[in-house]
Amino acid sequence: MEIEVTQEKLAKALNNVSRIAVGKVTLPILNNVLIRVNNKKVSLTTTNLDMAIVDFLPVSNSKDGVITVPAKLLAEFISNLPKGEKITISEKDHKITISAGKYKSVINGSPADDFPELPELSEKNAVVFKLGVEEFKNGISSVAIASSNDLTRPALTGIYFNTYDKTLAIAATDGYRLAEKKLIKNVQSEIAVIVPATTLQEVLRSLSDEMEEVEISFNDDLVRFRLGEVEIISKLIDASYPDYRRLIPKDNDIKVEVSRDELLRVTKLAALFARTVNGAIMCETKKPNIFSVKSLASELGENDSTIETKVEKEGKIRLSARFLTDALNALDSKDIEIEFTTRLTPMVLRNKKKDDYTHIIMPLNS
Amino acid sequence: MEIEVTQEKLAKALNNVSRIAVGKVTLPILNNVLIRVNNKKVSLTTTNLDMAIVDFLPVSNSKDGVITVPAKLLAEFISNLPKGEKITISEKDHKITISAGKYKSVINGSPADDFPELPELSEKNAVVFKLGVEEFKNGISSVAIASSNDLTRPALTGIYFNTYDKTLAIAATDGYRLAEKKLIKNVQSEIAVIVPATTLQEVLRSLSDEMEEVEISFNDDLVRFRLGEVEIISKLIDASYPDYRRLIPKDNDIKVEVSRDELLRVTKLAALFARTVNGAIMCETKKPNIFSVKSLASELGENDSTIETKVEKEGKIRLSARFLTDALNALDSKDIEIEFTTRLTPMVLRNKKKDDYTHIIMPLNS
Repeated sequence: MEIEVTQEKLAKALNNVSRIAVGKVTLPILNNVLIRVNNKKVSLTTTNLDMAIVDFLPVSNSKDGVITVPAKLLAEFISNLPKGEKITISEKDHKITISAGKYKSVINGSPADDFPELPELSEKNAVVFKLGVEEFKNGISSVAIASSNDLTRPALTGIYFNTYDKTLAIAATDGYRLAEKKLIKNVQSEIAVIVPATTLQEVLRSLSDEMEEVEISFNDDLVRFRLGEVEIISKLIDASYPDYRRLIPKDNDIKVEVSRDELLRVTKLAALFARTVNGAIMCETKKPNIFSVKSLASELGENDSTIETKVEKEGKIRLSARFLTDALNALDSKDIEIEFTTRLTPMVLRNKKKDDYTHIIMPLNS
Repeated sequence: MEIEVTQEKLAKALNNVSRIAVGKVTLPILNNVLIRVNNKKVSLTTTNLDMAIVDFLPVSNSKDGVITVPAKLLAEFISNLPKGEKITISEKDHKITISAGKYKSVINGSPADDFPELPELSEKNAVVFKLGVEEFKNGISSVAIASSNDLTRPALTGIYFNTYDKTLAIAATDGYRLAEKKLIKNVQSEIAVIVPATTLQEVLRSLSDEMEEVEISFNDDLVRFRLGEVEIISKLIDASYPDYRRLIPKDNDIKVEVSRDELLRVTKLAALFARTVNGAIMCETKKPNIFSVKSLASELGENDSTIETKVEKEGKIRLSARFLTDALNALDSKDIEIEFTTRLTPMVLRNKKKDDYTHIIMPLNS
C-alpha cells in the first residue's frame, strides 16, 4: 500500500475521522483508523460499533492495500508536520512509514482483518432525502436541545425523523420539553425512525464550509449521511417513539407576543435569584399590557421584571428558567408567540407568524 | 449609600473583583464584595484572606456608606443589564436596590463589619519598582511556568523577586526546571521576597489594554500591585528561597544554536511516540552538523528527527518532552542557544545573544 497526499488534506481527513476512535479496553482496535487503497481510491474509516465515519481522500498517487493504525497518533503526527509538505505513506509488515521532506517515522499498525466495519447501507429500498447544509444544521440544532441523556429510555436519546402531511419533521423530547421542526415540505416517501442524537452531533461536527448539500438515506436499521467526501453510517435506535404530536396543546386561552431578546434578558435576570429553588420562575400575564417574569425564591433578594405587550387574558405558569432560556435560544425571530392555558398544561413557543418550529415546556408542579 | 454609574464601568469592575470571591463554607462572607463610598470615592473590594483586589470606580454621583453583597450574583446581574444603561445602587437595611431603566432588583447584603480586609501596605519603608505592562506580563509569564504546585514546599509555589548586581530578577523552580528573567536594570533598592504565583496570575488577569505601567511595592510581609484603577494586595510567602543561581551550570562543553520553531516541532513529534515512557526523549549532538531528538519508546513506532546545526562536540541528554516544550514556548527569539555537558547536569536554554532570560531543565535519570 502506498499513498501520496498533501499535509493539509490528510490532516483534515484524519482530524475528522479520529474523533470517534476511542477504543474500549476490551476492543483496542477501535482506536485505529482503517486505511484502504483500492483502484486509486483511498478511504479512511473509524468506528465505535454504533457508527462509522468514512472520509474519501483525493490523493495524487497510490498503490492498493489496506492496514489499520492508531488514529489519534497518526492524526497528531500529521497535524504537527509543516503545512504544504507532500506526504508519502507506505505499508510493509503491518507498519506504515511516513515520509515528509526531512521528517520520517514508522508507526506500528494491525491487520485490517481484525477491524469491525459497519454493514453497508444497500441502495435499493433506501429512502433518500436531500437538503441544504444550513437548513439541516439549524434544524438539528433547534431540536437536539430537547433530547434526553437518560439511557434507560433509549427512544428519547434520539431525534425522531417522521413524515406526515407530506412533510419530513424532526422531533426530540426529554419528557419535560419537546421541540419539533418541519424540515422538508412536499416529500413523497414515508419514514418514522429514531436517529441517535450522538450521531447527529458527529454529523454537525463533520460539516465544513465548502459543503452545500446533505444526503440522508434510511433503510430498516441504518442511516447514512453523505456530506461531500465524508460518509457517516449509524445504527438507528430500535424503539418506539411516543406519539409526540398529541402532547402539543391546541386552542390555548392566553396568547402574547414578546421580543425574544427582551424575554431572554429578563429570564436570565430572574434565574440568578432562582438558584436556591433549582431555577424555578413564574411567568404571568396582567391586563392590559404586562408580561412579568419573577424568581420564586427570596433568600438572595427580589427580582420582578416586566415586558410590555398586549394582554387579553390573565394567567400564570411556573417553569424552569433553564428550559425557557434553551427554548428562546432555539427560536430565531425577533418577536415570538407564547401560548398557555393553565398552570398544569405546557407553554407553547413559536417564531412569530411561522409554524415550522414548535417548542413546548411542561410546567413545574406547584 | 448611593452611587450612579454606567453599566459598562460597573460590569467591568465587578467582573474583575468577583473572580476571587469564592467563599469558604466556614466563612461565607468571602463570597461578598465590599462596596464603600467615602467622600465621592467608590471602592469595590474582595478577598480570599491571602490576597485582596480593590477596584476604584469612577462614578457620577454618590452618597457615603458601606455594605457587602454576594459578588458573583451582583456581577452577573449587572452583566445581563443592557449596555449603556445608567445604573443607580442605593443601600437601606442591609439591602441594595438596583435600578436601571425599567429593571429593578433588591439584593440582600451583610454589614461591612463582618468583612475581613487585608491590612494596608504602609508607604514608608516600602520598596517600590515601576515597569511597563508588556515587560511585566512577558517576564512573569516566562518564569511562572517553572513554579511548583506542591504545597508541601511553599517557597517553590511562589515567584522569587530578588536583586543582585543592581538588577531586579524574578525566578521560579519546581525542582525539575528553573527559569530566571532579569526584569529591571540599574535598580537602587534591594529586595528578596517570594510572591505567590496565584497572586501573580490574578495580576495578569486584571491587566487590560488601557494600562501602561505596573507599580510594585513591597514591605516586610505584603506586596501591592497598582494597575490603573485596580490594586491587588497579597501576603508574601514566608519561607526561604533556594540559592537558585548556583544551580545554573556555567562553562558547558556542548553548545549549539537551533531554530526555536524547528526544535518545537521535532520535540512535539517525538513526544507523540514517547507517551508510554512519560514523555522521555533523547537529545543528541553528532559531528559535524546534527542535533537529533528521538523518543525512547518503540511500542508505537519509531521517530528520529534531526535539525542541521554546527556541532563541535558530541553528547546526549535525556529530558522530559513537556519541560522542553514549555521552555521553548517561554523563549522568544528565532534562534536559541542550547548548552549541556553530561547526562547528569542540566540543559541550559537562552535566546540567541541575549542573557536576560535563562531556562534550565534537569536531565531524567537513565
